[in-house]
Parts: sequence; structure tokens; C-alpha cells
Amino acid sequence: MLEMPAPSEEILDRKSDIVRRLKEVAPEATVIHDPDETKAYECDAFTVYTCSPLAVVLPSSTEEVAAVLKICHEESVPVIPRGSGTSLAGGALPTADSVIVGVSRMNEVLETDYDNRFIRVQTGRTNLSVTAEVEGRGFFYAPDPSSQLACAIAGNIAMNSGGAHCLKYGVTTNNLMGIRLVTIEGEIMDLGGPYLDAGGLDLMGIVCGSEGQLGIVTEAILRIVPKPEGARPVLFGFSSNEVAGACVADIIRAGILPVAIEFMDRPCIRACEDFVGAGYPDVEALLIVEVEGAPSEIDMQLGLIKQVAANHNPETVQESLSDEQSARIWAGRKSAFGAMGRIADYICLDGTIPVSELPRVLKGISKLSETYGLGVANVFHAGDGNLHPLILFDANSEEEVKRCEEMGAEILKLCVESGGCLTGEHGVGVEKRDLMPCQYSEADLEAQMRIKDVFDPNWLLNPTKIFPLHISGERRAA
Amino acid sequence: MLEMPAPSEEILDRKSDIVRRLKEVAPEATVIHDPDETKAYECDAFTVYTCSPLAVVLPSSTEEVAAVLKICHEESVPVIPRGSGTSLAGGALPTADSVIVGVSRMNEVLETDYDNRFIRVQTGRTNLSVTAEVEGRGFFYAPDPSSQLACAIAGNIAMNSGGAHCLKYGVTTNNLMGIRLVTIEGEIMDLGGPYLDAGGLDLMGIVCGSEGQLGIVTEAILRIVPKPEGARPVLFGFSSNEVAGACVADIIRAGILPVAIEFMDRPCIRACEDFVGAGYPDVEALLIVEVEGAPSEIDMQLGLIKQVAANHNPETVQESLSDEQSARIWAGRKSAFGAMGRIADYICLDGTIPVSELPRVLKGISKLSETYGLGVANVFHAGDGNLHPLILFDANSEEEVKRCEEMGAEILKLCVESGGCLTGEHGVGVEKRDLMPCQYSEADLEAQMRIKDVFDPNWLLNPTKIFPLHISGERRAA
Repeated sequence: MLEMPAPSEEILDRKSDIVRRLKEVAPEATVIHDPDETKAYECDAFTVYTCSPLAVVLPSSTEEVAAVLKICHEESVPVIPRGSGTSLAGGALPTADSVIVGVSRMNEVLETDYDNRFIRVQTGRTNLSVTAEVEGRGFFYAPDPSSQLACAIAGNIAMNSGGAHCLKYGVTTNNLMGIRLVTIEGEIMDLGGPYLDAGGLDLMGIVCGSEGQLGIVTEAILRIVPKPEGARPVLFGFSSNEVAGACVADIIRAGILPVAIEFMDRPCIRACEDFVGAGYPDVEALLIVEVEGAPSEIDMQLGLIKQVAANHNPETVQESLSDEQSARIWAGRKSAFGAMGRIADYICLDGTIPVSELPRVLKGISKLSETYGLGVANVFHAGDGNLHPLILFDANSEEEVKRCEEMGAEILKLCVESGGCLTGEHGVGVEKRDLMPCQYSEADLEAQMRIKDVFDPNWLLNPTKIFPLHISGERRAA
Repeated sequence: MLEMPAPSEEILDRKSDIVRRLKEVAPEATVIHDPDETKAYECDAFTVYTCSPLAVVLPSSTEEVAAVLKICHEESVPVIPRGSGTSLAGGALPTADSVIVGVSRMNEVLETDYDNRFIRVQTGRTNLSVTAEVEGRGFFYAPDPSSQLACAIAGNIAMNSGGAHCLKYGVTTNNLMGIRLVTIEGEIMDLGGPYLDAGGLDLMGIVCGSEGQLGIVTEAILRIVPKPEGARPVLFGFSSNEVAGACVADIIRAGILPVAIEFMDRPCIRACEDFVGAGYPDVEALLIVEVEGAPSEIDMQLGLIKQVAANHNPETVQESLSDEQSARIWAGRKSAFGAMGRIADYICLDGTIPVSELPRVLKGISKLSETYGLGVANVFHAGDGNLHPLILFDANSEEEVKRCEEMGAEILKLCVESGGCLTGEHGVGVEKRDLMPCQYSEADLEAQMRIKDVFDPNWLLNPTKIFPLHISGERRAA
């Protein structure tokens, strides 16, 4: 179980003063402090831990965010930045003495520039609605987390989110051109801009993926890319996870560049079939391989991919024959987490490994599943080695929660040992906080914390995340 | 003229002690200290300023680099990291009291991993020889600076270098997966790795493009990408720079994604023709637009591009008919800087602007050319708005040097005013140091300097670069 520091009684005692000050800079209705109402913010999509915050503010402008942060800084109150609250790593988990600053009401499109291929939005805007804004003109925003219908650009930037199509298009940092950042002191900074490289030290780059440790991002300039002429997925069914994993490694080695290679094992396939009727075959392991381009390009690439797959004796090969069929295939994949949630409690891990290690690590995960006596379902972005094992457990059993966490830690350690890392796209949050020393040296973590010192000298922003408490301790006390 | 701080007499007095200590950790032949020999290191490709260093060390391993930096740290001697010395911004310009640490002897390929699509090299390796290592297997390393035959990966990382093909493939930071960094204290850190996103704060991202301010990068894990089936350039000749610029903006707006759009004006076209006989037409302005993919894909894209270009009444349209012709077209473009150097002294600027501003800014540059009475030749990456105006001047006339610098500053300010930035790929170096406040707020520069403080508390690494002396002054003195 994660250690959580006790809240500051001194701050709790000042609650009414703090709320009063917040109401001076934000409309009364947007300052939530009644315990019945703050309860709605007690967790994000990582529901294992919950804690209601002192208060919640939902500002409607960058200036309001700045005024709120200035007050929190003056009052020495911790701040929890929040987008849509879809973090799977507890990235927006409150502490009892903290104020949540949520950007959900800031969701405007500020500028759409097709000549220079970018869109500027407030970061409370949801991921999918960014694409909705530009698809009429033949463009889209590439990063596509499974939660894209709900998740906010703010959270995407905080966690450097990816998605099924990041094999080709990269993750958020590869598609982010500029940000407006509000520091804990209430200073507004514009970092980056609509160009590839800006000179000087890349502050925008260090903010992207920093999980709300350095400030609150209220606006973003996002690269939009032209939609390909077409795209077509093909489904390959295999007799085991390991064989499917070996096939992925072979596709990558062959120098083919599909836009996505997604993996699902039997438990996930079944859950998705039951939930949305995606038309998946009844096999042990499934790959969804999508290529895009002009029809002839698609045919050529799929031909090569089928050749490679043939070496692994797929049990089924099923090419999408229509846009409707393609949409159904993707609807299945994108609903996988929801579909699994209907049949079991689970935690969703997010380790990344070199693709060539897929067969070995998938086997290792099966073994751990036996050892710990907990089921695992696998659904993940195989092309870039970004695993999402779902460990199934009973949330009402404290003993199972503990076992599940231990098993999760073992899987993530296995990823790091295999040359990979603790997180592919969900971030560290509280979930992987205590595992950071498996991946990072002391000097590395110290350098990261000293960069946090630069932006947030009193360590008020998003407490208890990323850095193990025992190494950040003195800073937090300071 | 750039202000340069006087060297520390105290360090100059200790030269023989410092050299003796360096020889204790690096083979004697690799420690250069005779003034006749250090003179070879008095500048990089930005030849306007020169200064011989105290000494030069050319280590042959990461451990040697670490030992050398440890000594420099203990002796409080400034360090100039150096790759191949091809910086066009004076990124490796020495000071008289500094030790150059050059990685040119560290040029091994350490690992080639086709399964996971990366290559691990020592950073003294030249850019082009990275591609040479993997092209037999159908892969290449995407960033392609014009100096790619000579420039080192170390310098590419320091400057976040781009190249003609970064319109499609991004700049160095988009193709860099991991680095081995030696800090000024001699600590060795591995940052990033062969995965898209690592969790925690992105230290590798902040090191990339930091111009040797944070440490010396001795090894790099580089993404390699599959070579497209084919590529074909087409040349469009136009009656003016402005019309060519407007055509570029139209291609981008149309949602077509060429792999490169290069621009050359008449002075450059002529110089390249005379130098390599590239077969360019005799026009005011030339666009080289290259697309890649399968033959049918190429035909389709070039068809669309020709349609867009037709609206701007090109004087000539000339499609490459063979691989030899394509190679000749690119040889011309890549030799442009050399070709211009045969006929005039020049400084090469590197501002970036939104593509839609091309016609306006090109006109503005012409006007500045008249005002200052100095010729300008333009050759640049038009697709991503990365301008390279070459200002022609007589290096023997102090007055012309001064006028040239003033004009360069005006052009870069025009870029920033147009929504762009001071540098696209060459970095800030000494050249653009004093212009940084045009682009960055005081708070931004302060945050950048505080991040340097984290890695290099005594400000020994690459002095006089990036930060205007008047704002970095106290830190340097400290």
C-alpha cells in the first residue's frame, strides 16, 4: 500500500479563510468546498485510493488560474492540477489539505491555422473534440488515448499521452508546439510556438510529461496533420500470446511502418465482443495491424504484413472490407478498458519494453499471474512495446489489493529489466511513484527534483506524485 | 560587435598545471596545448570571431571525458564541448581560458538493433555515417543537416539540428531516444532509452538543444526509420521570391505532406550551378519539392502539388526522371553554402517563421538588403518556414562586418515579430546570444538559467553562449 503523508492540520484549520480568498478571484459557483461536493473529486480513474480535497476551483481563464495559484502560493496550500480526471496512475489524486485547480471549463478553440498547420486551444478541451474541429478540412490531431472522448489536452500534456496511432505519429510531445504555463507564483509564460525548434533550453519539452509538477498549462498550440487518404486494419488471430508477440517484432524488423499494431489476449477479446460486438475472432491472441495511405499503398503494405505474419501460422486473417467494419474493429479496441471494467475490478499497468522482448515478457507476465493467483488481461500498443496488462482483482478484499499491487510492481520491474521503462503514456502519478528508483539513478532523480525546485521551490504543485516520499521528504518539509 | 569577457589571467597562469593534470587522465597525444596547434580550434564554421583555447583534449571514451571534466571542475576551468566544429552560430567558439573537450575520436557504432529500430553510437560519429551503417538493411537516420558529411551527432544533439527532410521526419529531438551524459562534475548519466516516453521529468529533452550548457553527450540512441520505396523531387521556377513563398504556403494549406520543400533564390541558384552543375533552371526563385512512397503514391502527390503550383504560374516545371537526376538536384542544394562561400564572405542566418508569412518576410529581407547595402542570397527549408538568408559582405572590412551583423539582427527580429523564432536548427551560440531577449521574457530566460544552475552550478560549460552576458553576469562571476 502506498504511504500517504498526513494532511497539514494547520491548513485544514484555515479552510474558510482560503475559500474566502479564492472566491474573491473566481466566481462563487466555481469554488467548490462543501464536503458533499468535493467528494466528486476524491479520485481520478485510478480508483484504488481516494481522498477529498480541501476545495476545488474551476477557473474560466488563464488570468483566473494565475490569481488562484497566487493565492495558494501565498497561503502555502498544495495545488492539484486536474484535466478531466481520467488519469490511470492517480495523477490527479488529491490530498486533504490541497486545492484542486481544474481546467474543465476552459475548453475553447482559440485559433485554427491551416496555413501553418496548428490549432490553439484551451487545455480543458477534450482530445477528440480537437480533431472534431479540424476534420472537416481534412486534418486531425494525432495522439489518441483510449479515453480520448473524455480526456483533456491538459492531462495529455501532463502525462505525455500516446495512443494506438503513436507508433507512426509519436506521443504528445511530438505533436505539441507551444504552451501557456501558469507558475505557482501566478506568472504566465508562453513556451515554444508554432515552429520545430526555438533555441535556448527547451522549457516546453520539460513541462510536457511533468505531471503538473511545474505549473498549470492553460493553452496549447497543437500540430494538426493531414488525414491520410484511407486506412485499413487487418486482424490476425494466433494460438498464443508469445506467437503474436513474435509476429509484432518481425513486422517491425521488416521495416514496414504500420500506423498501429494493437494486441489483445483472449480475456480482452471476449470482453470486447460481449460489450460492443466488434467481430473479433475466437482466438488466444489478436493483432490489429492498421496501415494507411492511398489504396495501392495500403494493398502493398498489407501484402508485406501478411507475408510476415504467415511465418507465424495465424489461425485467422481477417481484413476489414469497409469503413464500417474498420470503425467496429477500433470501437472494440477503444472500449477494451470499459469492457473489462464490466466484468472485474482491475488495475491497468503501463510498462514499455523493446518490441523484441515481447514474447519473453508476455511469458513472464503469465508466470507472475500464476504465482500471485490473479488473472491478467492484455490489451496494448504492441508496435511500440507499450504494454497494458490489466490485473484482475477484487477491490473489496484488502488482501487482494495488496497482492495486486505487488504483482503490478513485479511486472513493471520486469519491463525495466528488459530494457524498457515504467510507463509508456499514463505517467507515474502515485501508482508508480515508489518504483522510480528501479528505473532512475539517484543522480537522475536528484536532477529531476532540482528542476522542480526551479519552478516550484516550495513543492506545492501536485504533491505525493512521481517522487518517492523518502527522497522528496526534505523538500516537501521545506 | 559581440562583447567577449576578458579571460581569467589566473587560469592562464595555471596553464601548465592544468595541462599536466589532463595528461594524467588522457593519453599525451590527445592533449593539445601548443599555441600553434590549438590555433586549429580557434573557431567553428562561424568564422567571424576567433580565439585560441587554453588547451584541447580529444578523449576516446566516456570515462576519459568524465575524468577530464572532473579536473576542469576541480580547477574551475571553463569547458567548450565540441563535435566536428561545424556550428554556424559559434556554438563551439573557445575563450582563451577554456579547455575544448572534443568527441571527434569517439565515433564507434556500439549497437545496431533492427528489431527495435535504433542504433547506439558514440557522438563523435558523423551524421551521414550513421545512415551509412544501416542503409544496407533499408533504414536511415532522418535528420539531415547540409553539413551531414562532416557534422557530428554530438553537435546535432547540442543544436537540435534539422535538415531538408525534417518537414516530414522532425528535427533531432524527434529522432533521439536516449543519451549518455557526462556532467561537469564527471558524473555519467543515462537519460531516456529506446522507448517513446519514460516517465518523470524529461531530462533528455532538456539536454537536446541545450548547446553544451548542461554536460557532454558521449553516446546516443538514435531512431532509425525504414527508407521509403522511392522519392522524387520536382523543381518549380518562379518569377519572384514572393510568388515562390506564396506557393509554399498553398502546398502546406492543401494538406499535402511532401518530405521536403526547399527554396533557393537567383544568387544561390547561380552559385550552385557554377559549382556542381545541378541542372537548375535560370529563374528568380526555385522550389525543390520532394515526395516519397510507392510510385503510384508519388505520382498522386506530385499531381496535387503541380495543381497547387499551377495557380502561381511557374515559369518552369521540371520533374526528376531518374535517381541520378534526383541525386544531382540534391547535391546542388546541399552544396549551396559551399557554393556561395566560393564567391563571397557571408553569414548564414537561421530564423523560423510561420509558412504563411513567407511572402511578407522575404519582401522584408529584400528591403533590408537595400537599406543596408549588402547582398542577400536565400536558400532554406521553406516547408517548415526555416529561413537561411546569407548576408554577403567583405570580411576584411570592419565596417561591413558591423553592418552585416546589424542587418542580421534586423532580419531575425523580423522573424520573431512575424510569429517565428530566432533559430530553426543552428542554435543560438554566440551569434544570436544578444537577441535572446527579443524572443524570450525575463522570466523565461531566468528559468532557463536556473536549469543550467542545476547541471552546472559554477557555469563552467560553454561560456558566452545562449545567454546575454549582462543577464548571466552574476552567475558567471559566482
